[in-house]
Amino acid sequence: MPQYNRVVIVGVGLLGGSIGMALRARGLAKEIVGVGRSGRLPQEAIGLGAVDRVETDIQGAARNADLAVVCTPVRLVAESAAQCAAVMHGDGLITDVGSTKATIVQAVEQAGLGCMFCGSHPLAGSHKSGASHGSATLFENKLVVVTPTPKTPGQLAERTEEFWRSIGARTSRMSPIEHDEALARTSHLPHVVAAALAAVTPIELLPLVGTGWRDTTRIAQGSASLWRQILEENSVPVQHALENFACSIDQWLSALRSGDGDRLEKLLESGKATRDALGS
Amino acid sequence: MPQYNRVVIVGVGLLGGSIGMALRARGLAKEIVGVGRSGRLPQEAIGLGAVDRVETDIQGAARNADLAVVCTPVRLVAESAAQCAAVMHGDGLITDVGSTKATIVQAVEQAGLGCMFCGSHPLAGSHKSGASHGSATLFENKLVVVTPTPKTPGQLAERTEEFWRSIGARTSRMSPIEHDEALARTSHLPHVVAAALAAVTPIELLPLVGTGWRDTTRIAQGSASLWRQILEENSVPVQHALENFACSIDQWLSALRSGDGDRLEKLLESGKATRDALGS
Repeated sequence: MPQYNRVVIVGVGLLGGSIGMALRARGLAKEIVGVGRSGRLPQEAIGLGAVDRVETDIQGAARNADLAVVCTPVRLVAESAAQCAAVMHGDGLITDVGSTKATIVQAVEQAGLGCMFCGSHPLAGSHKSGASHGSATLFENKLVVVTPTPKTPGQLAERTEEFWRSIGARTSRMSPIEHDEALARTSHLPHVVAAALAAVTPIELLPLVGTGWRDTTRIAQGSASLWRQILEENSVPVQHALENFACSIDQWLSALRSGDGDRLEKLLESGKATRDALGS
Repeated sequence: MPQYNRVVIVGVGLLGGSIGMALRARGLAKEIVGVGRSGRLPQEAIGLGAVDRVETDIQGAARNADLAVVCTPVRLVAESAAQCAAVMHGDGLITDVGSTKATIVQAVEQAGLGCMFCGSHPLAGSHKSGASHGSATLFENKLVVVTPTPKTPGQLAERTEEFWRSIGARTSRMSPIEHDEALARTSHLPHVVAAALAAVTPIELLPLVGTGWRDTTRIAQGSASLWRQILEENSVPVQHALENFACSIDQWLSALRSGDGDRLEKLLESGKATRDALGS
């Protein structure tokens, strides 16, 4: 029996499209409505079975919905959530997939939507975009961080967790600020590092790169405009992470300049130990 | 008809083992002799068909060989090459697979082996080690940089290229110094960056990493002692590459601190443009 009568997915790209496909594959929703600009991509999402139809008007799409998942770029999440809230079922649930949480949750609560909205961040995705790169199994066994605040009704956080678990994910709770500080180190710093490394490589040397450079810079292929928003929204934690990283680079330089091979080996071992702890 | 009567491979790990398997698969050698310490790994190389036998004595193994490929850690290459040269066939060819070239080639030429040795660096490999992770096709369509000097007989460089092409690789010539400066940027810098990124990540945050952190740090799993040697042998070019990278990180920090979103987006676009130029 479907869990939701009408689900609205605002933004039917990689994540939004995969959510639709996952709900469909598991028979969890009677109706799935996408919100997006007109054009090829929404048609693709319909063709993939991610949504039944795509509307350009968010309020038309969200009317009487009992679940809204906002999958827009982070800067548009709070506004999209407010538009959904205005027309949704009274005890509807709104969540999102944004990579930053504090700014979004603060804006949502300031707009008075704290009793309908609970933030989420699925640690799933890709540098590729578009529903055609998604799948009904994208979230299976992936971690989704759910970020209630002291103002979030406990039952709302539980329903948010239930939603993610219903499409195969694992969930973990953190405060929005705790989330942002952690993700600055585990996601946003790697993006900056990968992009910086790619950018300092002279293009005429590309024929000489191996799998190492290729892997290390892969995520630099992500959308510059989406990542600009993430870095701007989470600017202070990212600065701290990047300052910490810059200090580490100084230690490497110092070991190289002084010819301290033992120190170099310790630095290499330290990185290897952390990476090995994760497994390949 | 086999091209070589006796090939000696000094060090039968990932690269040495793969060279043996490739020669075997293509019927290019009458006899392939490995040099290695006794123990499990040489037995593995024999079991894989990479070598006919493994000897611990390099001079015994190399006697009358017409091709020697030195696959030891970089610091041992020159000495191993000298030991091979002392007992090989008079017009034998010695090459290597070291990730740095200037120090190795200089030491080899100072030892008077310039007319038998031509340096090589196959841009193939892995953070994994051991012949069991290798394959007969490891070099297929991979680039091998061959690094003759003004003292290298032209015919020796050609034979070195022929060897690599015979096992499926493409070749390109560079001077040893040109090679080291290029690889400092395309290989050694990425290794330092990956290891530094892994090392600054608090281990308790590992459950929160996604595929981005995983890809970006993958090569930090490489052997610390092997990489220490590479960084020490190529210290000055690596310092320059790392200083250049540190300047770039400063630009990101400055853009974040001043809230200059346009500048952040330009930095992101610059990294994306170079990475996109390579393809996924």
